[in-house]
Amino acid sequence: MAAAAIAPATPLRLKPYSALRYLSLYTKPIPKPNPYSLPFPPFLLRPPPLAGAGVILPRRRFFSTIVSGALQSGEAVEKTKPEFSEKWRGEAGEKIGEFRKKLRVADIKHGPDEGLGRVGQTLVVTGWVRTLRVQSSVTFIEVNDGSCLSNMQCVIDSDAEGYDQVEAGLITTGASIWVQGTLVPSQGSKQKVELKVKKIVVVGKSDPSYPIQKKRVSREFLRTKAHLRPRTNTFGAVARVRNALAFATHKFFQENGFVWVSSPIITASDCEGAGEQFCVTTLIPSSGEVVDSPVDAVPKTKDGLIDWSQDFFGKPAFLTVSGQLNAETYATALSDVYTFGPTFRAENSNTSRHLAEFWMIEPELAFADLNDDMACATAYLQYVVRYVLENCKEDMDFFNTWIEKGIVDRLNDVAEKEFVQLTYTDAIELLLRANKKFEFPVKWGCDLQSEHERYITEEAYGGCPVIIRDYPKEIKAFYMRQNDDGKTVAAMDMLVPRVGELIGGSQREERLEYLETRLDDLKLDKDTYWWYLDLRRYGSVPHAGFGLGFERLVQFATGIENIRDTIPFPRTPGSAEF
Amino acid sequence: MAAAAIAPATPLRLKPYSALRYLSLYTKPIPKPNPYSLPFPPFLLRPPPLAGAGVILPRRRFFSTIVSGALQSGEAVEKTKPEFSEKWRGEAGEKIGEFRKKLRVADIKHGPDEGLGRVGQTLVVTGWVRTLRVQSSVTFIEVNDGSCLSNMQCVIDSDAEGYDQVEAGLITTGASIWVQGTLVPSQGSKQKVELKVKKIVVVGKSDPSYPIQKKRVSREFLRTKAHLRPRTNTFGAVARVRNALAFATHKFFQENGFVWVSSPIITASDCEGAGEQFCVTTLIPSSGEVVDSPVDAVPKTKDGLIDWSQDFFGKPAFLTVSGQLNAETYATALSDVYTFGPTFRAENSNTSRHLAEFWMIEPELAFADLNDDMACATAYLQYVVRYVLENCKEDMDFFNTWIEKGIVDRLNDVAEKEFVQLTYTDAIELLLRANKKFEFPVKWGCDLQSEHERYITEEAYGGCPVIIRDYPKEIKAFYMRQNDDGKTVAAMDMLVPRVGELIGGSQREERLEYLETRLDDLKLDKDTYWWYLDLRRYGSVPHAGFGLGFERLVQFATGIENIRDTIPFPRTPGSAEF
Repeated sequence: MAAAAIAPATPLRLKPYSALRYLSLYTKPIPKPNPYSLPFPPFLLRPPPLAGAGVILPRRRFFSTIVSGALQSGEAVEKTKPEFSEKWRGEAGEKIGEFRKKLRVADIKHGPDEGLGRVGQTLVVTGWVRTLRVQSSVTFIEVNDGSCLSNMQCVIDSDAEGYDQVEAGLITTGASIWVQGTLVPSQGSKQKVELKVKKIVVVGKSDPSYPIQKKRVSREFLRTKAHLRPRTNTFGAVARVRNALAFATHKFFQENGFVWVSSPIITASDCEGAGEQFCVTTLIPSSGEVVDSPVDAVPKTKDGLIDWSQDFFGKPAFLTVSGQLNAETYATALSDVYTFGPTFRAENSNTSRHLAEFWMIEPELAFADLNDDMACATAYLQYVVRYVLENCKEDMDFFNTWIEKGIVDRLNDVAEKEFVQLTYTDAIELLLRANKKFEFPVKWGCDLQSEHERYITEEAYGGCPVIIRDYPKEIKAFYMRQNDDGKTVAAMDMLVPRVGELIGGSQREERLEYLETRLDDLKLDKDTYWWYLDLRRYGSVPHAGFGLGFERLVQFATGIENIRDTIPFPRTPGSAEF
Repeated sequence: MAAAAIAPATPLRLKPYSALRYLSLYTKPIPKPNPYSLPFPPFLLRPPPLAGAGVILPRRRFFSTIVSGALQSGEAVEKTKPEFSEKWRGEAGEKIGEFRKKLRVADIKHGPDEGLGRVGQTLVVTGWVRTLRVQSSVTFIEVNDGSCLSNMQCVIDSDAEGYDQVEAGLITTGASIWVQGTLVPSQGSKQKVELKVKKIVVVGKSDPSYPIQKKRVSREFLRTKAHLRPRTNTFGAVARVRNALAFATHKFFQENGFVWVSSPIITASDCEGAGEQFCVTTLIPSSGEVVDSPVDAVPKTKDGLIDWSQDFFGKPAFLTVSGQLNAETYATALSDVYTFGPTFRAENSNTSRHLAEFWMIEPELAFADLNDDMACATAYLQYVVRYVLENCKEDMDFFNTWIEKGIVDRLNDVAEKEFVQLTYTDAIELLLRANKKFEFPVKWGCDLQSEHERYITEEAYGGCPVIIRDYPKEIKAFYMRQNDDGKTVAAMDMLVPRVGELIGGSQREERLEYLETRLDDLKLDKDTYWWYLDLRRYGSVPHAGFGLGFERLVQFATGIENIRDTIPFPRTPGSAEF
């Protein structure tokens, strides 16, 4: 094969694939001269057998220097120095290659000069073909590597090595390719630079049945192709914005001295009492045999009841609906903590706002009251919104154009406006005075419905997030701190335009006697809550926190209408595919 | 009450608790003059009723300026300007206070000057009493706020306001307190600074039954007090190091262009085939009724089998054992991704190395082979180890002294040494030539046991991490890429001292025909893997990844022997408390 015939004379003995990454795809630290402009041998990669689905890559090691293990000094020596390797004879091993950040399309195109600074450099781009346009003398290939929305436009003519693959019709939508070329200014108006291809290799062909062709497909259809949908503009952008929101979440809390705590996923504690929980069990034979499990095989007591003592945890266990109570235990030791993990609801709601499995962020602040809690929730939301606006500009422009017109302005408002707080009592007054007919009647003591929430934030406050506080205790959870009026609790809900309630929080009842009274009132068993009550027995402190459904936040930040499109693999009634 | 009588004349109308945070506990941005040194009125906090467990705090708002909602310009105006507020009449609300980072003990003591730069400032510290030492003229109170291992030593004499609480015996181990004082140089050798107390308030008393008294308690006992154990030195330090490892994980991958992907927790897909999975179901009535559930209540078909069509997902569903296959779908769209989420094993292993619920990190790299994978795993581990050594110095010194002597040196070695790789075949040779009797005999084709792994990394390579690669395909998973020898696969395990296998990874089989053959060989149903195979039909690329059990990493980095002490609420056979 040609590649073998003109093998490199370079003294660097690099493994072909890694060599490509090393010399062309990775960027840190950059030695001088810039390796991207090196005329390095591009034939290290053997072209794939055209018949195969993939490509067989010849395998050679990163570095072939043989080192004979590490000495106690921490240094590795070459085997050719026997005086050092004596002790380690036989324990020969090789070094691990250096890991370098890949040069991605985003790195090329997202700088302030949109790539112009790299013009003239020889670059390698790998990714998936989005479109192919054949013109009289040249062919345009749009390659996307998922690092950003925009593709690298690759211009190829018949002189390029591997052009036969274009002629053979192998470069189709969905195929993966490796292209090497020179970065040149683009003639087109959509980008500043493009890649003039010197060499192209089809890494993996795309079968003609590829379901995501150029014509637009519905998001409903794409849910049935959850394994391929991240290759579309919309889902690629959602994945990147979701990632940015997650990282901004960690950054915000870490910068403010919060400790990330993993609250348990499986819990045998009844505390949450939320009702709609999934049962976690090994009483039903696991995977493989499970489809035809006789009910009789479930262990039972002599009374015909399920024998929980034989279950994995020795009693009924469930998937968590909230990590809050657990987070409180850590907040009353480490001061400020947050959880960020999956939570579950076995609610039979087939709506665009509900998932059976979703991620939740639950900060908990010690020595804090409801005002601190509201201040934290506000600062948090503004921080992550600002982070996304600054770091996902291209994706946000895409959402602004294709998903929700005006979303960038809406988010800018959120990042800059002062949020408003008002009491539940004032909110009820406001709704009663509104010149608006609501489906659900408004009355002090009722829970606010989505129509009410959206009226307040979208109409009464013109798109500004609003926090409602001090709700009637009857409609809120047992752990919320009772206000001095005896009727309300120090709860707060943050309402945002379009989504409605995004954040719900409260100051927690830190007074043992109040908490016990409340449990009694609600006929909840105090023994079940022994450890939660202990926090009030030993060094109780005023503390507060909130919960935020991460997928709601992604909806809010992207404008995506259906929550099933904000998480890679949504779980809903009747659906747990992939 | 005295507090009311000498209420502040300051024009700032601050809510007492928040005011304390505002003026004393929060530090960003710091106006001049430095508020810590302001002689602000310390009596805003009403002393607690001595009889109660907690303290009742008078509630006033952060800012009492009434704003009348946000105008379309994005500006909030005071209600006293009727020309702007006309439209918003009735929609009055208040602003949300500013959120400020709390001034923590770590902020005071962990600077390069260990707090000396703040000498003379008036500071407030809140936290939990660790110890109380009464001497002839002064009393020393050690206060810990969880931000770091060390306490703030508070020195109090009879002149201090609130000294009566010391005399009344309210300041006991476990009580929460609020102290205000002047930072002064310490006479003691253990710290550079201490707080000379002007005023002290017991926020929450500690019942004499407080189980974590000064005398050392066993870690077994503390597992039964998982809600209080973070208040001990060891578990506080573990929580902080765990947090640092988690954040360093996100930082490493984000800095290298990886996208965090949430792989699903509940899965009805059989792909993982790992056997020991938990079943997730709603066929058993949920919480509340569950304890006495008759087996007969489980829906069944007329053949007496469990009627899965009535379950939440319409078929059997399980807790995930790995997010890898899902991560591959995103890697073949976005190039480089990682998961970081909980995974589960219903294995009945009561060992110090197994949890039923644990967190896993699974990066997946596209256009990458096994060498890239090993390079990534090495760079990742060195990064997080370095991060912890740099950011958790005090905690690491604690582990070095009390948990595992020499751990800091061991980690420094890991951060600096070149890791070694050798093939499985070479590793077997090495073991066969070793002057050592192993319990499990060594033979090509056998799986390496813990004793073998530890011999290699601890003895043969003197404490250097070693990667073993190219394992026999029979002992590895179906998805691993077959090597050209037809006998081995491109798998790798990273072995580290003490822990043994810390990371396991592989290049994935990207060639459709090889993968299908392998599934057939193993009698696995290809239809079940339709979406996984699709990734090889449409633009397949060489890709690789690895998995790392996060709690093993915490064990490795802290020296903690039992994995149950590395996660806040461990789940093991028979135990899912809290």
